[in-house]
Amino acid sequence: MENIEYMRKIPGLFISIVITLNCFGQREDSILLRKIYTEALTHGQCYANLDYLSNKIGGRPSGSLQAQKAVEWTYLAMKMAGSDSVFEQECMVPHWVRGNKEKGQIRTSSRQEDTEDVNICALGGSIGTPAEGILASVIEVKSVEELYLLGTKKIKGKIVFFNRPFDISEIDPFKAYGKAVDQRWKGPSVAAKFGAVATICRSMTTDINDFPHTGSMTYSDSIPEKVPACAISTVSAERLSELLKRSTSGVQFYLKMDCKTLPDEKSYNVIAEIKGSEFPEKIIVVGGHLDSWDTGDGAQDDGAGVVQAMEVIRIFKTLGIKPKRTIRAVAFMNEENGARGGSKYAEIAKKNNEQHALAIETDRGGFSPRGFSLTGSSEKRELLMKWKPLFEPYGIYDFSRQGGGTDIEPLGKMGVPMMELFPDPQRYFDHHHCPNDTFKYVSKRELEMGAASLAALIYLASEHNF
Amino acid sequence: MENIEYMRKIPGLFISIVITLNCFGQREDSILLRKIYTEALTHGQCYANLDYLSNKIGGRPSGSLQAQKAVEWTYLAMKMAGSDSVFEQECMVPHWVRGNKEKGQIRTSSRQEDTEDVNICALGGSIGTPAEGILASVIEVKSVEELYLLGTKKIKGKIVFFNRPFDISEIDPFKAYGKAVDQRWKGPSVAAKFGAVATICRSMTTDINDFPHTGSMTYSDSIPEKVPACAISTVSAERLSELLKRSTSGVQFYLKMDCKTLPDEKSYNVIAEIKGSEFPEKIIVVGGHLDSWDTGDGAQDDGAGVVQAMEVIRIFKTLGIKPKRTIRAVAFMNEENGARGGSKYAEIAKKNNEQHALAIETDRGGFSPRGFSLTGSSEKRELLMKWKPLFEPYGIYDFSRQGGGTDIEPLGKMGVPMMELFPDPQRYFDHHHCPNDTFKYVSKRELEMGAASLAALIYLASEHNF
Repeated sequence: MENIEYMRKIPGLFISIVITLNCFGQREDSILLRKIYTEALTHGQCYANLDYLSNKIGGRPSGSLQAQKAVEWTYLAMKMAGSDSVFEQECMVPHWVRGNKEKGQIRTSSRQEDTEDVNICALGGSIGTPAEGILASVIEVKSVEELYLLGTKKIKGKIVFFNRPFDISEIDPFKAYGKAVDQRWKGPSVAAKFGAVATICRSMTTDINDFPHTGSMTYSDSIPEKVPACAISTVSAERLSELLKRSTSGVQFYLKMDCKTLPDEKSYNVIAEIKGSEFPEKIIVVGGHLDSWDTGDGAQDDGAGVVQAMEVIRIFKTLGIKPKRTIRAVAFMNEENGARGGSKYAEIAKKNNEQHALAIETDRGGFSPRGFSLTGSSEKRELLMKWKPLFEPYGIYDFSRQGGGTDIEPLGKMGVPMMELFPDPQRYFDHHHCPNDTFKYVSKRELEMGAASLAALIYLASEHNF
Repeated sequence: MENIEYMRKIPGLFISIVITLNCFGQREDSILLRKIYTEALTHGQCYANLDYLSNKIGGRPSGSLQAQKAVEWTYLAMKMAGSDSVFEQECMVPHWVRGNKEKGQIRTSSRQEDTEDVNICALGGSIGTPAEGILASVIEVKSVEELYLLGTKKIKGKIVFFNRPFDISEIDPFKAYGKAVDQRWKGPSVAAKFGAVATICRSMTTDINDFPHTGSMTYSDSIPEKVPACAISTVSAERLSELLKRSTSGVQFYLKMDCKTLPDEKSYNVIAEIKGSEFPEKIIVVGGHLDSWDTGDGAQDDGAGVVQAMEVIRIFKTLGIKPKRTIRAVAFMNEENGARGGSKYAEIAKKNNEQHALAIETDRGGFSPRGFSLTGSSEKRELLMKWKPLFEPYGIYDFSRQGGGTDIEPLGKMGVPMMELFPDPQRYFDHHHCPNDTFKYVSKRELEMGAASLAALIYLASEHNF
């Protein structure tokens, strides 16, 4: 586009906003919000922080050396942000390691020329294969339930291939994820129950590409034996399915995985605090998770959330905002495969009789913000809706969703109202849990707009007794 | 994020939408819109088309061989989309060529070690330098107006460096662009008036990086002599400014540019049409521009708009929608440096006494759609607002802006209501007019959501006498 005279196109929007705001007597709030957004966009630190976390530390699964480095760096970065205090909460976390890169092959006959290498990765929590790998016939299913129809006779000794794609007609890709992810999470256990020797899961993504997407799975206590579980890229999933359709004599799959679970490791939540000026005992929490998967650098999931939470502290301190309530930015540990950090936070809060007024999660990537979801009483929803006009100048309009987040769910169960930043969801699963989750796909402006929106919300919640 | 139980978070939003829709009696429309979005997301062709246009044809400035290839390909692609008819409109377009890659150097002394290469590119329409280049002292200004204060005495013989950055506190980067672009557009002419020998313009972007951003400029008729005009990357602009501050003896700049303007070339708008079933004489136009700058592949500016407009035709035909009014998808030629295609379209419309009910432009990149702007009567705005609930399930909520677009402006001047797709604006100027405008930065889902939104709007406008 090439429009020289853009300026004259700016509408009478401003006037209507001012009128609306006056109706609610929110003029001072609107001025403060404008300061928050300006600070985030003109002197933002979150993008530089994310650069460090993604490129200098990188992928940081729970229990890894990188996760420990991330804890140490976050502690210092929170100090630098100007927090009144920074502290850690110790927690024991699972320590699963991938080991050597996985090997996957489709074999349509025993001849070398009928062998195709394909891109797989172990699912988090999976056991490895024997050193020589596993070779077995493949049976494709479109759902976990299908296994019950097939029964042991058809499954025993085979590799089960879960291949139900995302429903890409869903406008919100998170909903498509919710409809497909049982294949990854509980598929391996159900397959094991019927005697499968391994499982392959189609990657959880809207896209057709060659990145395998990892993610956590669980072994049910009732299964006879654990089986190795891997994800296959969507390109390779389509290929495998096609070959199965074509073949009259069946298709074999070979996989070799080196992954294993080591004893639990000591790790930490890292917490930055600004003490409340009037009601220090009332706490508002905002947080993302510091751990990530290992195949990318964890920039979107959830480096973005961690640096945004820290940025809230920096913005408050830089602008000299003295919140009435206590603000905490939390870098939760171990969201991806155990959520031990979130549990530990709630456990300590309970033990210490802390009063949490509100818990906010940011764990949907650093994309352009569109709104906030809420799980709370109708009074809370009403209050939130009153703030809607204040957010309109910033393109934040969606306040009708319910939501929360894995890290704050234990607080939610204790009755604390939960919210979550809702960024534009369309690109999230292009990056989620795969080698494509890297810093270069994060937009500085989008990340900053999200941080500013969180700071604005927390300011309002702190001032107006949310 | 790792939320296994996402599904239970989906809110009571659906119920409230259904209630709202019933109030307006829009149930049938809402069903049709759902079909349109599903078709775009599950069988969309626009991403594959954009891949071809960007990667097989590439950057396509007016008058270039690539632009001619793009015209031929678009004609075929429009046929493939199922149009009732496809036709071309001949127009003469400017033919400016960049020639060899430009060379730019900062020189803080005559010694070789005090010479730094910097990234520049010629502005579209600029004359080249003499073969040996131009070497002169640099004078930095922050505005075009500043030149009037400095006067000929301080400017004569120098290279004027326009270095007013984007106001990144603007929430809408297009507004920041509007506030800075006079430096690029008319800066060279004003500098020439005061005897400058060349101009350098800070790149038009929100980002600090090393891509120079080109774009059009104009020579006023009243200047004594044309001067070469280039853009410098924001990284190099900061560097040059810093060196100017530090230096006591001044800084010289060397530039060598090979660009020139050749005689006008014959080119074409390409137009796909579906004849209206009830009011074929009433025309609704949707279009983007087929030409682009040459340093990237023009995927966002404006390959995205062209393939979205074509996708509207394909969606209508695939779903068997017989619009009451005639729909035209237009690939306009020469938006970037002359807008001759847009003028030609309006000229022919006038000559043939065509009745245009509505003209819609899509030229703000293939980002996640957020709304539609409108320039039209208050009755039109009211009608548009009634459709708002129909768009809510798709995250399209912003209908309050005024807007139009360069290509359809000549129609607007004839009284035709104008609209423009309003996608999320935050990333646009990371890509605009620079080598970073490439296909890999376009999100398939975001592009498809935009195409679907255009098809939905056009369906409503065609059925409900917009």
